[in-house]
Amino acid sequence: MTTVYLAMVCGVIAVLYGILTSAQVLRQSPGDARMQDIAAAIQEGAKAYLGRQYTTIAIVGVVVAVILLATLGTLSTVGFVIGAVLSGVAGYVGMTISVRANVRTAEAARGSLQGGLTTAFRSGAVTGMLVAGLGLLAIAGFFWYLTGPGGRAPNDRAIVEALTALAFGASLISIFARLGGGIFTKAADVGADLVGKVEAGIPEDDPRNPAVIADNVGDNVGDCAGMAADLFETYVVTLGVTMVSIALLIRASGEELMRLMTLPLAVGGVCILASIAGTYAVRLGRGSIMGALYKGFWTSAILSLPLIWLATSWTLGDMHAVIGGAGFLDPATDAVTAGAPATAAAGFTGTDLFWCMAIGLAVTGLIVWITEYYTGTAYRPVKSIARASETGHGTNVIQGLAISLESTALPTLVIVIAVVATYQLAGIIGIGFAATAMLALAGMVVALDAYGPVTDNAGGIAEMAGLPDDVRSRTDALDAVGNTTKAVTKGYAIGSAALAALVLFGAYTTDLRTYFPDVTVDFSLSNPYVIVGLLLGALLPYLFGAFGMTAVGRAAGAVVEEVRGQFRDNPGIMEGTSRPNYGRTVDLVTRAAIREMIVPSLLPVASPIILYFVIKQVAGQASGFAALGAMLLGVIVSGLFVAISMTSGGGAWDNAKKFIEDGNHGGKGSEAHKAAVTGDTVGDPYKDTAGPAVNPMIKITNIVALLLLAALAAG
Amino acid sequence: MTTVYLAMVCGVIAVLYGILTSAQVLRQSPGDARMQDIAAAIQEGAKAYLGRQYTTIAIVGVVVAVILLATLGTLSTVGFVIGAVLSGVAGYVGMTISVRANVRTAEAARGSLQGGLTTAFRSGAVTGMLVAGLGLLAIAGFFWYLTGPGGRAPNDRAIVEALTALAFGASLISIFARLGGGIFTKAADVGADLVGKVEAGIPEDDPRNPAVIADNVGDNVGDCAGMAADLFETYVVTLGVTMVSIALLIRASGEELMRLMTLPLAVGGVCILASIAGTYAVRLGRGSIMGALYKGFWTSAILSLPLIWLATSWTLGDMHAVIGGAGFLDPATDAVTAGAPATAAAGFTGTDLFWCMAIGLAVTGLIVWITEYYTGTAYRPVKSIARASETGHGTNVIQGLAISLESTALPTLVIVIAVVATYQLAGIIGIGFAATAMLALAGMVVALDAYGPVTDNAGGIAEMAGLPDDVRSRTDALDAVGNTTKAVTKGYAIGSAALAALVLFGAYTTDLRTYFPDVTVDFSLSNPYVIVGLLLGALLPYLFGAFGMTAVGRAAGAVVEEVRGQFRDNPGIMEGTSRPNYGRTVDLVTRAAIREMIVPSLLPVASPIILYFVIKQVAGQASGFAALGAMLLGVIVSGLFVAISMTSGGGAWDNAKKFIEDGNHGGKGSEAHKAAVTGDTVGDPYKDTAGPAVNPMIKITNIVALLLLAALAAG
Repeated sequence: MTTVYLAMVCGVIAVLYGILTSAQVLRQSPGDARMQDIAAAIQEGAKAYLGRQYTTIAIVGVVVAVILLATLGTLSTVGFVIGAVLSGVAGYVGMTISVRANVRTAEAARGSLQGGLTTAFRSGAVTGMLVAGLGLLAIAGFFWYLTGPGGRAPNDRAIVEALTALAFGASLISIFARLGGGIFTKAADVGADLVGKVEAGIPEDDPRNPAVIADNVGDNVGDCAGMAADLFETYVVTLGVTMVSIALLIRASGEELMRLMTLPLAVGGVCILASIAGTYAVRLGRGSIMGALYKGFWTSAILSLPLIWLATSWTLGDMHAVIGGAGFLDPATDAVTAGAPATAAAGFTGTDLFWCMAIGLAVTGLIVWITEYYTGTAYRPVKSIARASETGHGTNVIQGLAISLESTALPTLVIVIAVVATYQLAGIIGIGFAATAMLALAGMVVALDAYGPVTDNAGGIAEMAGLPDDVRSRTDALDAVGNTTKAVTKGYAIGSAALAALVLFGAYTTDLRTYFPDVTVDFSLSNPYVIVGLLLGALLPYLFGAFGMTAVGRAAGAVVEEVRGQFRDNPGIMEGTSRPNYGRTVDLVTRAAIREMIVPSLLPVASPIILYFVIKQVAGQASGFAALGAMLLGVIVSGLFVAISMTSGGGAWDNAKKFIEDGNHGGKGSEAHKAAVTGDTVGDPYKDTAGPAVNPMIKITNIVALLLLAALAAG
Repeated sequence: MTTVYLAMVCGVIAVLYGILTSAQVLRQSPGDARMQDIAAAIQEGAKAYLGRQYTTIAIVGVVVAVILLATLGTLSTVGFVIGAVLSGVAGYVGMTISVRANVRTAEAARGSLQGGLTTAFRSGAVTGMLVAGLGLLAIAGFFWYLTGPGGRAPNDRAIVEALTALAFGASLISIFARLGGGIFTKAADVGADLVGKVEAGIPEDDPRNPAVIADNVGDNVGDCAGMAADLFETYVVTLGVTMVSIALLIRASGEELMRLMTLPLAVGGVCILASIAGTYAVRLGRGSIMGALYKGFWTSAILSLPLIWLATSWTLGDMHAVIGGAGFLDPATDAVTAGAPATAAAGFTGTDLFWCMAIGLAVTGLIVWITEYYTGTAYRPVKSIARASETGHGTNVIQGLAISLESTALPTLVIVIAVVATYQLAGIIGIGFAATAMLALAGMVVALDAYGPVTDNAGGIAEMAGLPDDVRSRTDALDAVGNTTKAVTKGYAIGSAALAALVLFGAYTTDLRTYFPDVTVDFSLSNPYVIVGLLLGALLPYLFGAFGMTAVGRAAGAVVEEVRGQFRDNPGIMEGTSRPNYGRTVDLVTRAAIREMIVPSLLPVASPIILYFVIKQVAGQASGFAALGAMLLGVIVSGLFVAISMTSGGGAWDNAKKFIEDGNHGGKGSEAHKAAVTGDTVGDPYKDTAGPAVNPMIKITNIVALLLLAALAAG
C-alpha cells in the first residue's frame, strides 16, 4: 500500500507543478491591448466550443452511465464517471492555459527566441503534467479506495470491472474530444486557407479573414484539448489494463499480487519525477529548437531508467524472486501454451520486468527517432516530397502518399520486436509493462506536443496584431518543429495501443473463461468467424477515417461559403475599414464539428455489440465471442497502419511545404510551393482529424467488448 | 474422368473462340497509312517491352525452377513451368490482339459508335476467353495427365504439390507483369500528362509529345497484358486451391473424391460457354455503352446459374447425397470445431454446393454494382469529388481519399456475409466453391476490362492521326466506361482473393499437420507470434504500395526530364516540323519499369521465408509456423482494404475529372477541372499500379508458404 501512496504523492507533485508553472506563465506580460483583444477572442471561442462539446458529450455520458448502473452496478458507474470527468478536466485545463500562454509567447518572442520557447514549452508542460498527474491520481486513488477503505482483495472482480469502467469513461470522452476537436481545427484551418490564401490572396492569419479566429481556436480545442483527453485516456487504459491483467492472470499470494499490481503505479510515479526534471533541461544552447526539446525528452528518458529500477526493486523487494512460477497462466487455455517460451511458462522475475520496461523506453525513443526521420526537413522523405512538388500538385500528392505508406514499416518492426522480446521475458504481463513504461513518459511527450498549438497561436497573434516581422519569424521557427512533435505523440500513442491491445485481448479471453466457463471459444485463425471478426475490425479504421475526412471537407466548405458571404455583404472587411464577424464563423464551425463527431464516435461503441449479437444469432454464442475477440485484434492490425500512415504522412507534407518556404525549390510563391500547399491541405485532416482519433477508437472497441462480457454475465 | 474431358473441351472451345474472333477483328480495316504507322509504333514498343520483361522474369523463373527441382522434384517443377509459361502466353497474346484492335477500333468508330464498340469488345473478349480457356486447360490437362496416364490417386500428395506449383508459376509471372506493366503504363501516362498537358500546354495524345507513344504502349502492356496475367493467376489459383482443399480435407471413396475434385473444372467449363454466349449479347440498343456491356455480363451470369446446376448434378450424380459426412475434417484440429455449424460438421450435399456457387455469383454481381456506384458518374461518390474540386486541388484530394476509404465498407460486408453463409452450408469447401463460381465468370469479366485499353488507344490514334473530332468523341465515350470496368475487375479479383485466402489457410494448416505431425501449432489469437505474423503480414501491402507509388513517381519524373530534353534539343518538334524520338522515351520507360519491378515483386516471395526462419530461431519451430500462418491472413486482412480503396478511389477520381469535362462545375479548363486533373493523376498509380498488384502479392505470399512447408518436409 505504501507504493500506492508514493504514486499518489507523485501525482500530487505533478498537479502542483502544473499549478506553479501556470502561475509562472500567467505572471508574464500578455502584450499590448491589441494582442490581448485578439487573445480574448480566441479564449472566448475556445471556451464556447468546449462548453458546447462537453454538454453534448455529457448527454451521451449520462445515457451510458445509466446503462452501466443498470448492468454493472454502482462501483463501475463511479469508475466511469471519474474517468470521464478527469479526461474532460485534463483537456479543459490544458486548453485554458494554452489560450493564455499563446499571447504571452508572442510577447516573449519579441524579446528573444529563448523567451518564446520557454513560455510555450512551460505551457505545454502544464498540460503534460496534468495529463500524467491526473491519470495517475485517478487510478491510484480509485485502487487505494477499493483495496483500503473498500476492503477488497486486489484481484476482486469488482476491482477489475471498476478499473475497466474507469478506462471506458476516459476513452469515451477522448474519442469525442479528439474527433470533435480534430474536425473543428481542420475545418477552420482548411476553410481559412482556401478562402483566404487561395481565393482572396491574403496571407495566413490575416485579421481581415473572418475564419482566422476560428483557425486559432481550433489549435487549442483540437491540438491541445483533444490531444490531452486522448493521451489521458491512453495513460489510464495502459496502466489500468496492465493492473487488470495481473489480477486476472497471475496466481500468487495476496501480498505478492498487491506488490505486482501496484508496480505500474510506482513506475508512473517515478517517471513523473523524471519528466519534471526533464522540463528543466529544455534550453536552446547552440543547437536547434528541436535539439532543445529533445534535451528535455532524453533527460526524462535516461533518468527514468534508474528510477524504474529503484521503483521495481523497492516495490517487489527481491528482483530475482520468481513471480507466477508454475501458476503463470496462459490467458487462452489455462495452461502453458504450445510454443510459449520457457521463461514465460516458468514465471518471471523483477529483473525480467525491468528489462521489459527498458524495452518500452527504447520503443518510445525509436518511435521518436523514426518519426523525426519521416517528418523532419533534414531527411529523404520530406525532401522527396518537396522535390516532387516541382512537377506539380499530382506528383506532390503521389510522393506524399508513398511516404505515408512507407512510414508504417519501421514502427511496425519496432513493435513486433518489442512484442517478441517482452513476451519471451515475461509473457503477456511483460508486454503490459513495456506499454506502461512507454506511457509513464506521457508527461514529457504531451508537453512537447502541447507546446505546438501555443506557438502556432502565438504566430497568428503576432500576425494579426501587426508585430514586427522578426517576431513572426521567431514564432514560425518555434512552430516548425511542432509538426514533428505532434507526429511523434501520435506515433507513440498508437504504438503503445498496439502493445496494450494484446494485453486487452488477454483480458478478454480470461474474462470469457471466468464469466462463461461452459462456452468453448475457438480463437484459431481456422475458424471463419475469427476471420469475419478480423475483417470487420479492420474495416472500422477505414470507415472511421472516411467519416473524419468527409466531415472536414464538408465543414471546410461551409466555412468557405460563410467567409465569401461576409466578404460580399461587407466590402469594408477587405479594405480593412470594418471588422469581420469572427464569432459567427467560430459558431458555424462549432456547430459543424459537434454535429459531425457524433456518428463516427458511436461507431466503435456500437460495432462490437452489433457484431456479437448478429453472429450469435446466426452461428451461436461461441462463434459470436470468437468474432468479437477477433474484431478487437482486427481493429488494431489495421488501425496501426491507418493511424501511422496518416499522422506521419501528414507531418511530412506539412514540413515539405515549410522546407520549400525556407527557400528551396523556388521558395514561397513558386509553382512548387503551390503544389506543396495542396499536399499540406490534404495532410491536414489526415494528421489532425482521422489519424489521431484511431487511437481512442481502438481502445473503445476493446473496452466495450470487456464491458459487454461483464454485462452479459450479469444479465 | 468424363468431367475432365468436358472441361478440356470447353477450354478448347474458348481458345477456338479466341482464334476465330481474332481473325474477325484482324479482317477489319486498319485505317489509312498514318494510322497504321502510329499503330506500328505502338506495336513495336509493346513488343519490345514485353520481350524485355519476359526475359527478366525468365531469369527469375529459371532460378526458382532450379530451387523447386532441388527441393520438390520434377512434377512440381513441370507444374511451375506450365503455370508460368501459360500466364505469360495469356498476357502476350492479349497484348498482341489489343495492339492490332486499337487502330481497327479507331477506324470502325469513323463509321459508328456500335462499330467501335463491337471491335473493341471483341478484342477484349479474345483476351478474356484466352485467360479462362488456357487457365482451365492448364489445370484440367495437368490433372488429367496425373490421374490418368500418371496413374495417381486424386488426393495423392504429388498432385497437391504439383497443382500448388502450377499456381505458383502463374502467380510469380503475374506479380512481375502486373507491377512492371503498371509502373510502365502510369509512368508514361503521368509523365506525358505533366510535360505535355501541364507544361507545354498541348492536348493529351498530341503527336508532338515524345511520350505519347509510350503512353499508348503502356495501356497495352499494363492494362491489357499485366491484367490478363493477373486474372489468369487468379483463375488458376482459385480453381487449383479448391481442388487441393478437397483432396486435403474430404475423406471419401476414390470415386466420390474424383467427382468432387473435378466439379470446379466442370463449373469452369460451363461458365466459359455462358461467357461466350454473353459476348454476343453486348449490343448498344437504346441504352448506354455501360448498359451494352452489362447486357453481356448479366447474360453470362444468369445463364451460368442453371448451367452450374446441371454441371453439379451431372458431375456428382445425386444432389442430395451427403458428402464428407462424419469424415469431414476441420483443417486445424482434425475434429469438429467448437462453434462450427451443424451442417458443416455433418457433411454437405450437392445442393449445398450449388447454393455456395450461387452465392459466389451473387458476390460477383454485388461487387460489380458497388463498384459502379463508387466509380460511376451518376452517383454521390464521384459527384462529391467533382463538387469538392470547386474549392481546389486540396479538397479534391481530401474528398477522393475519403471516398477511397469509404469504398471498402460494402465489399467487405458482402464478403463477410458470403463467408458466413457458405461456411454454414459446406464449411471451408463451400467457401472454395463460392470463389470458384466467382472466377468461372473470368472470361466475361476480363473481356469487359481488356476492352478498356483498346478504346483508350483508339482515342490516342484518332488524335495523333488527325481523324475528325466526332471520331475522337466516340472513342472518348467508349473509353469513359473503361474506368468503371477496370475498377470492377480489380474489386472482383481482390474479393475472390479474400475467399481464396481462407481456403489457402485451410490448406496450410492441413499441410502442417501432414508434414509435421509432431509439432503442435497454436493459431490462437492469444499467441503473440500470431499477432506478430498478422502485423507483419498487414505491413506487406503498405510497403508494396509505397514501392509502387514511389516507382511511378520516379519513372514519371525521368520521362519529364527526357521529354524536356527532346523539346530543348529539337525545337522543330513543337513546331510540328520534325518527328520526336518516340522510341527513346519508350526505351527509357521500359528500362525504368523493369528496374523498379524487381525488388517489390520479390518482397512477398522472401518475406514468408525470412519470417519463418527468424521466429523459428528466436522462439522455436511451432512459433515460426504460427507466425507464418498468421502472416498469410494478415496480408489479406490488410491487402483487401488497401487494394479496394486504391482501385475504387482511383476510378472515382478519374471519372470525377470526366464528369467535369462533360460540362459540370465549369467544364474543361475551369479551376475545378485543374483540381480534378490533380486527383486523376494521384489516382493513376493508386488504381493501375499499387492497388491491382496487391492481388497477386497476396497469392504469392500464401503459395510460397505452402511450398516452404513442402520443402521443409522434404529437406
